[in-house]
Amino acid sequence: MALAAERLAIEGVSIEVDGGRFAAKVIAGQPYEVEADIFSDGHDSIDAVVLFQRKGSDEVGETPMTFVENDRWTADLTLPEPGDHEVSILAWRDLFLTWRKEVAKKHAAGQSIALELEEGRQLLSAALESDGRADEAGRQTITALLDEDAGQPASEADHEGLRFARLGAPDVVALMRRIGPRTNATPYRWLPVFADREAAAFSAWYELMPRSQSGSMDRHGTFDDVIGRLPYIRDLGFDVLYFPPIHPIGKTNRKGRNNTLTPADDDPGSPYAIGAPEGGHDALHPELGSFDDFARLVSAARDHGLEIALDFAIQCSPDHPWIREHPEWFDWRPDGTIKFAENPPKKYEDIVNVHFYRGALPDLWIALRDIVLFWVDKGVRIFRVDNPHTKPFPFWEWLIAEVRAKDPGVIFLAEAFTRPKVMARLAKVGFSQSYSYFTWRNTKDGLTEYLTELTATDVRHIMRPNFFVTTPDINPRFLHASGRPGFRTRLVLAATLGGNYGIYNGYEICEAAAVPGKEEFLDSEKYQIRVWDMDQPGNIQDDIRLMNRLRHEHPALRQFTDLTFYEADSDHVLAYGKQAGDDFVLVHVNLDPHNAHEFRLEVPLWKFGLPDEASIEVRDLINGNSFTWHGKYQWLTLEPDTRPYAVWQLIAPGVAR
Amino acid sequence: MALAAERLAIEGVSIEVDGGRFAAKVIAGQPYEVEADIFSDGHDSIDAVVLFQRKGSDEVGETPMTFVENDRWTADLTLPEPGDHEVSILAWRDLFLTWRKEVAKKHAAGQSIALELEEGRQLLSAALESDGRADEAGRQTITALLDEDAGQPASEADHEGLRFARLGAPDVVALMRRIGPRTNATPYRWLPVFADREAAAFSAWYELMPRSQSGSMDRHGTFDDVIGRLPYIRDLGFDVLYFPPIHPIGKTNRKGRNNTLTPADDDPGSPYAIGAPEGGHDALHPELGSFDDFARLVSAARDHGLEIALDFAIQCSPDHPWIREHPEWFDWRPDGTIKFAENPPKKYEDIVNVHFYRGALPDLWIALRDIVLFWVDKGVRIFRVDNPHTKPFPFWEWLIAEVRAKDPGVIFLAEAFTRPKVMARLAKVGFSQSYSYFTWRNTKDGLTEYLTELTATDVRHIMRPNFFVTTPDINPRFLHASGRPGFRTRLVLAATLGGNYGIYNGYEICEAAAVPGKEEFLDSEKYQIRVWDMDQPGNIQDDIRLMNRLRHEHPALRQFTDLTFYEADSDHVLAYGKQAGDDFVLVHVNLDPHNAHEFRLEVPLWKFGLPDEASIEVRDLINGNSFTWHGKYQWLTLEPDTRPYAVWQLIAPGVAR
Repeated sequence: MALAAERLAIEGVSIEVDGGRFAAKVIAGQPYEVEADIFSDGHDSIDAVVLFQRKGSDEVGETPMTFVENDRWTADLTLPEPGDHEVSILAWRDLFLTWRKEVAKKHAAGQSIALELEEGRQLLSAALESDGRADEAGRQTITALLDEDAGQPASEADHEGLRFARLGAPDVVALMRRIGPRTNATPYRWLPVFADREAAAFSAWYELMPRSQSGSMDRHGTFDDVIGRLPYIRDLGFDVLYFPPIHPIGKTNRKGRNNTLTPADDDPGSPYAIGAPEGGHDALHPELGSFDDFARLVSAARDHGLEIALDFAIQCSPDHPWIREHPEWFDWRPDGTIKFAENPPKKYEDIVNVHFYRGALPDLWIALRDIVLFWVDKGVRIFRVDNPHTKPFPFWEWLIAEVRAKDPGVIFLAEAFTRPKVMARLAKVGFSQSYSYFTWRNTKDGLTEYLTELTATDVRHIMRPNFFVTTPDINPRFLHASGRPGFRTRLVLAATLGGNYGIYNGYEICEAAAVPGKEEFLDSEKYQIRVWDMDQPGNIQDDIRLMNRLRHEHPALRQFTDLTFYEADSDHVLAYGKQAGDDFVLVHVNLDPHNAHEFRLEVPLWKFGLPDEASIEVRDLINGNSFTWHGKYQWLTLEPDTRPYAVWQLIAPGVAR
Repeated sequence: MALAAERLAIEGVSIEVDGGRFAAKVIAGQPYEVEADIFSDGHDSIDAVVLFQRKGSDEVGETPMTFVENDRWTADLTLPEPGDHEVSILAWRDLFLTWRKEVAKKHAAGQSIALELEEGRQLLSAALESDGRADEAGRQTITALLDEDAGQPASEADHEGLRFARLGAPDVVALMRRIGPRTNATPYRWLPVFADREAAAFSAWYELMPRSQSGSMDRHGTFDDVIGRLPYIRDLGFDVLYFPPIHPIGKTNRKGRNNTLTPADDDPGSPYAIGAPEGGHDALHPELGSFDDFARLVSAARDHGLEIALDFAIQCSPDHPWIREHPEWFDWRPDGTIKFAENPPKKYEDIVNVHFYRGALPDLWIALRDIVLFWVDKGVRIFRVDNPHTKPFPFWEWLIAEVRAKDPGVIFLAEAFTRPKVMARLAKVGFSQSYSYFTWRNTKDGLTEYLTELTATDVRHIMRPNFFVTTPDINPRFLHASGRPGFRTRLVLAATLGGNYGIYNGYEICEAAAVPGKEEFLDSEKYQIRVWDMDQPGNIQDDIRLMNRLRHEHPALRQFTDLTFYEADSDHVLAYGKQAGDDFVLVHVNLDPHNAHEFRLEVPLWKFGLPDEASIEVRDLINGNSFTWHGKYQWLTLEPDTRPYAVWQLIAPGVAR
């Protein structure tokens, strides 16, 4: 009858992912809401705490839960350090509170409560028992209370009321909550929860190709050239500087400019064709520099408040050393040739894929893990993983766990544009961040629906999107025709809706030249060296600088899930607010890059407990002006060229600005 | 790296209840839909089956799954026999189907597929390996195919097409699906599923008090009197005949008529005050008859196609033998008196509650289980359990499992009117049927919302409501003023919306006399003997007979969850259809017992694949007339006195009626 121990029902635990099979994700040091349905048979009062421990530790912490409604309880859980944790819930019947409530009803109905007072004394005495939870101070308080009560005559009705007022006083109930017996204490099972460092959930990424940083078409860029760009990137306010692969590039079947099969002799090839006689995934492309140069870059970036992120792309060029050293990791055709990557009828003859089973298990897995650890050792703690959905989920689950066992602060971004359940699975197996469909959500309905899914459904416990506005692979159709206003508004949407967001260089100068009819960049840096002038007229550096500053200054923008969409009576205007404690940021974006739109906007006065006709202090976060809005509705015009968006801080009455 | 074995992702398994903590419920011999998200990395074709086994058996059955959309797969699972089962899913990569699809694309693009044909031969040969799944016939087919293919020149393009047509023919793909290797076969974990006999999900209950069946106020009814009522109840078409407790009734603090505290000497007391010097829960109230009489009644009921259901009410009268024999099962006050049942400030002094922990565990649990088994031994296999939500959940989980280990056909109905999550928990711990909020859902919105929750959300896997229109405890306010039309329509709603439904006797003569202002019956049989004339004018026996006949004749009404609400342009008319295979029943109910309503009704032609302007054969199931509806909309008037409801059978084109 071991079952009997489960007297309390604990169900619907919000952070439980697939029955505890996968870990929910939180940020170390930041509160995270844990909810559950908790109830018992009958009508007794109950109580509950969230339990938490570092995996492998036996030191258990507790966070009190509070009742919400309809048997739902909640707590704000804060895990202090990054790493693997386990979280559970403990619930029990609170007999003293039950007694307090029932006796109050009887006393109010004029019934004698003499026997009930004696029962209350018994409950208080039970808290004194030596195997209980009471500390010395608690024991003394209760002993004194019982002594004082014992001095009263028990039989007179007037005295019953006085005795009950004393024995059942709120501070006694609170004390008993803290030290009283936990009757029928019922634990839930331990659920895995992973605590990341903040950069997993809050980061602004800037992507560039190191080889394009020399400032000249005639010279291959180097790590030292990238060091020269750091002040610029830092000035824009970014947190992460991310490079596509920096390894030796294969020559066999090398791609030419614009993805042609006919390269010129001096074409540099795609950096995703990894591996050459100079080495593979643990080598540097010689023209970029040496490991010493790379170390200097990592260090200089750190000095500029920037973290370097590398690409982890598992495919190999036909010249990768592994093909010779480990033929068993590759697929071979019946005629003895290697099987190139393909998506029939398309073929990708500059790369070959490894396979992960048969002869490749476990040696390849270990080799790949060691590649990641190699770069971790070089100071890289963020990896953007190329196409993880074409590699086995168990491989990622294993690799990420192995790496985090060495350093729980290593962050993995899944570059998977695929079906929603596949993307969610990658998040479940451990990816800290995920590419998203944001890039293709341009309408009011589309953005509202997608952000609601990401922030308000169960997926929020596992998936943290990184809202890239562009990447070397994606030159979104929307930007082809939007001009500068579209670049500005897409930036604002990404930076204020996303906890993580990113741009690929060129975005700041509204680069949108496309391969005709495709979402690909013309003259893509993937196949050639480019030279950029980021200061050219029409650049949107000011918008970027503003967004990144506001993100850092406003706790509301440092978090992802407290997002609410508000009314704006135009189909072209998206209105939303984010809140963290006292900080409240309201954003309006004109989604139409070609036309001005005037609209009535809703001021969420009710969020501050204010009536519809109240006034509220507002700060325009673009220009810093402060003023007052009177009433629940205001009117605004957003115009593509002069003012395509507005960002406001609403200041609650009585809060210092 | 045990992880590596889980290459396929299997998620969101529809019949998984709380991570597998509780069993989903199905009916033995009837198909039940099992759905899951199933996918792999990359783009390979996959396949899956549902696995099932009786608990404790190692004979595993398989049911093929089929792809629906968005990575969702489905299967119709049929468990042949009642009892505990385990269900899982096995998924794998189908390399041959993958090959078939990829090569088709290459061939269509004009590429040479010579090497691919050789790879196809290798895949076919792999199915011949001795440790594979191929039977002898399958081996022979494949061997013949390979031999035939080997006779062809490999190099000519024309021949490639012919060879591919043969090696990749649909029947070869189907054969390989059946006998080919299951690459990366990934099992889900075993999930508990309980298969009930059909009466758990489909039954019409009739409730009466045996002591009121003598036909005279002057004589206490007996089991033999009940035998005399069986032809009547069977003629109405009921399946289950249910009695409130039939045990000896206590005298201490006995309640008088209409729940007064001043009983007359000859007042019989509430049958829920169980226990007297004559015995407790395993004894019969002497005035009802002997165990021989009871056995005769059970047998006679069976001859009439009726099953007897008993009440299992755990409380005791102060005269119950257990109080003397097992004082440790009860709560005692500081002054040595027993603690009566109470809901402060209300007291229930004719009953005392047992407690289930401390001195009562495990002896009381075992005693209660043995009470149930005692009555099972007497031929009773359905128990209506009184107020189960005031007893511990683990107790019920244990007791129901223990009883079902002896007889998996025993059915438990939870009489719990309480908070939704508590009711769901009782269903999870094993109750086969549940009282419901149906009794208080009288509006179109209220019924639609509640039935949608019960039939279309996850709760459908665990909870089977029993739609009682009245009980001795509930004389619903709606019926106080509705008159006969309301009794007819509530009957129709219960009988056609519910898989299980029930009436308390008196319903057929529209008994609604209430304690003023309360939902309680005046002169309740709970406190006195009554005499009923069920044939009095205005009775609704014809409606009851019709409903119970239609329920048995129409598979659509034998099931609960395939329910769809349709358009009827009146807020007072509820329109809905149920479907099972070819059987389609459409129901219209006027929810307003006082006024006629004319409305436009929607004919769900699309359910038969018909266009909006099509015609469909219709049978009026009330009078048996057949005719044709032309077009998607029809008009109808439902009038409270003459025609408060309509029930139609829609007959698909080409289906024999």
